[in-house]
Amino acid sequence: VLRGKNLGKFNFRDKMLHKIINLTVRDVRFPTSLDQHGSDAMHTDPDYSAAYVVLDTDSGLTGFGLTFTLGKGTEIVVCAVEALARLVVGKCLQEIVSDFRGFYRLLTSDSQMRWLGPEKGVIHLATAAVLNAVWDLWARTEGKPLWKLLVDMEPKQLVSCIDFRYITDVLTEEEALDLLVKAQEGKQHREDQMQKEGYPAYTTSCAWLGYPDEQLKQLCTDALKSGWTRFKVKVGADLEDDVRRCRIIRQMIGPDNTLMIDANQRWDVAEAISWVSKLAEFRPLWIEEPTSPDDILGHAAISKCQNRVMFKQFLQASALQFVQIDSCRLGSVNENLAVLLMAHKFNVPVCPHAGGVGLCELVQHLILFDYICVSADLRNRMCEYVDHLHEHFTCPVVIQDAHYMPPKDPGYSCEMLESTVQRHQYPEGNVWKNMKK
Amino acid sequence: VLRGKNLGKFNFRDKMLHKIINLTVRDVRFPTSLDQHGSDAMHTDPDYSAAYVVLDTDSGLTGFGLTFTLGKGTEIVVCAVEALARLVVGKCLQEIVSDFRGFYRLLTSDSQMRWLGPEKGVIHLATAAVLNAVWDLWARTEGKPLWKLLVDMEPKQLVSCIDFRYITDVLTEEEALDLLVKAQEGKQHREDQMQKEGYPAYTTSCAWLGYPDEQLKQLCTDALKSGWTRFKVKVGADLEDDVRRCRIIRQMIGPDNTLMIDANQRWDVAEAISWVSKLAEFRPLWIEEPTSPDDILGHAAISKCQNRVMFKQFLQASALQFVQIDSCRLGSVNENLAVLLMAHKFNVPVCPHAGGVGLCELVQHLILFDYICVSADLRNRMCEYVDHLHEHFTCPVVIQDAHYMPPKDPGYSCEMLESTVQRHQYPEGNVWKNMKK
Repeated sequence: VLRGKNLGKFNFRDKMLHKIINLTVRDVRFPTSLDQHGSDAMHTDPDYSAAYVVLDTDSGLTGFGLTFTLGKGTEIVVCAVEALARLVVGKCLQEIVSDFRGFYRLLTSDSQMRWLGPEKGVIHLATAAVLNAVWDLWARTEGKPLWKLLVDMEPKQLVSCIDFRYITDVLTEEEALDLLVKAQEGKQHREDQMQKEGYPAYTTSCAWLGYPDEQLKQLCTDALKSGWTRFKVKVGADLEDDVRRCRIIRQMIGPDNTLMIDANQRWDVAEAISWVSKLAEFRPLWIEEPTSPDDILGHAAISKCQNRVMFKQFLQASALQFVQIDSCRLGSVNENLAVLLMAHKFNVPVCPHAGGVGLCELVQHLILFDYICVSADLRNRMCEYVDHLHEHFTCPVVIQDAHYMPPKDPGYSCEMLESTVQRHQYPEGNVWKNMKK
Repeated sequence: VLRGKNLGKFNFRDKMLHKIINLTVRDVRFPTSLDQHGSDAMHTDPDYSAAYVVLDTDSGLTGFGLTFTLGKGTEIVVCAVEALARLVVGKCLQEIVSDFRGFYRLLTSDSQMRWLGPEKGVIHLATAAVLNAVWDLWARTEGKPLWKLLVDMEPKQLVSCIDFRYITDVLTEEEALDLLVKAQEGKQHREDQMQKEGYPAYTTSCAWLGYPDEQLKQLCTDALKSGWTRFKVKVGADLEDDVRRCRIIRQMIGPDNTLMIDANQRWDVAEAISWVSKLAEFRPLWIEEPTSPDDILGHAAISKCQNRVMFKQFLQASALQFVQIDSCRLGSVNENLAVLLMAHKFNVPVCPHAGGVGLCELVQHLILFDYICVSADLRNRMCEYVDHLHEHFTCPVVIQDAHYMPPKDPGYSCEMLESTVQRHQYPEGNVWKNMKK
């Protein structure tokens, strides 16, 4: 059943043939730094923000997409989205998705714009925002949540969305197809299981770096009561502080629950090794982003990468033990498909990065698809969860007993309430205007 | 002797204490695509462009910097420079250069903005433009061309400009200092030699991908007459075309001159190997950017990297045989110093990337410094040269007998003629306004 305000006008006989007639992008910021939400060793005062994209079509149906940012500089991503708009507006959905690989490459390899990346930084974040909106539009057109659109797609069509440029030495199109065909077995069973149980999650909400100890304890107590068993702690600013905070959390959660630590790129290689050895007594399952995200050879144990070429090498070099996909740093569903398949080939568990604003809403679709159609495995797998800002979305995530429950509404779940967008638009929204007074 | 229009007002008693009171940035584009200048396998129609930065000080002295782009999207870099301006305006030069490492990190590690990179893509290009202007201002303040400012600096001060974060596993501050102190021997002799002979160059002007064969032949003939002995050819779009064009050039230049080829990231790994083997008969000295610039493990034979962390790994993995520094993609002089020192440690020759608009003007300073104060070696070393757009600069490069002659004017050589900036400003300059008619 289709829901949403724009659907009244939608004519089903024209399905897929509607044309994108307008792209708007807005700079939406939340003043999270006021309460130290989201603070870590490198990002001490983030204002969770988004470049928020809306695609209007001539059918009346609308697509929504975003990419996540930390406040200052969001206007640069907005500017980059505006530069990409000319490649999107005027195309009909059918034209895009019938050659989605070509469309992906059109956006990432424009002969003048690719100098600004390629496929990294601002321009890749902008690409993700635009493509997320296109995928949302596609899912809404089909009347399905995005994960279900993906689950119902033929392996051949899935593969046709992936740009294999620069990764064929590790994964060819034929091999990808083969992996997907093999994973079809038991698919229906896994889909039913997800509908019933949901996908396991862990929480990062308890232990941001800027939280005082008392707040940390209270949040742990609350989380344990709500059924959470896996917890992530931000570390890296001060070793003594880290030891004290990890000790508190390990005491609070007991020996059997899971603890992860995240240094957010704070250390050099030798520093990482010595620091982590001092935290080993608290038995972290992983240490996240110990050093530069570019440093494949630097013993990175786990990393969020900016594109499939970086993920390829981290896997080739056995430099990570967990893959953290990201719905907004990678080139949308298209590039995440490539990474999910490479991780599967190398038998490395995927534990998505989420939090921020909208990242939980988006990435849940990808990890559901991964379990149902690619990995078929839940061991050592869980999706990050942060309990912030969900109230600003029209279809917020549903967490039950520390599990992500599969979204039911059509689309990619990143439509924001229009009232939120208006209030938080930077710098003209009331939230920001009032702050300056 | 100080030259330049702004120097009349400059009060030498206040040297270094003047304050930056304004930063302006402009989008300057040249319609080079009309004649296929600069065309290669991935960039078929570049309009050489720059985000052009001017720093005004309260002394009346002005600093000029730029970063190079390919046309569309330059406005995104301009937007990023504007976002960085608040970190620069209000500071006095002394404050910046007395802790240049700290200032570099202020720009690259702003806790909200670093999410947009870090140190890559749009935000790093913008950082380069701003820092290039600061270095220009410093050199003008001292009344020296930039290369001479660097050559005259104590090793300790040079090292204090470098951010060693993420590279200490390969190069520590102590080690860098040691390398520089050792290389002091023979410095004066090498400086005299450069003043007399200049630094060897190679030309990329003869063989852009879009040039017809006749034009290519004529350009080769002319270049040989002017004393050129080293030539670079763009390849990668069509194998038969490449074979024909390489054959023509090898015939024109004879067996003893040097030929290099550049694929501009066109290939996957296996494709690169097979393609290059077909061109081996023309004996290229190197094959440039065969695949993704992110692909350290992908047998990249040579590469332009976006930051020191990528260069570090290419060197660690023996994945390149020549290092191509870039004055605008890396974080200005500061980050190039780190890369020059690492290349020296690994004994890999540095052959700078140049061309575009302003890249020759800028990078000549860095390679002169490298020879005089770091490598002390000219074997297998040469600096790229492209004969375009130099007429737009107040102090254009001087080439004599295929060598870069050391600049004499104070600064970093990237001040453009104001008339050029006004005519080429996008979209309001006359060059662009008239084109739309």
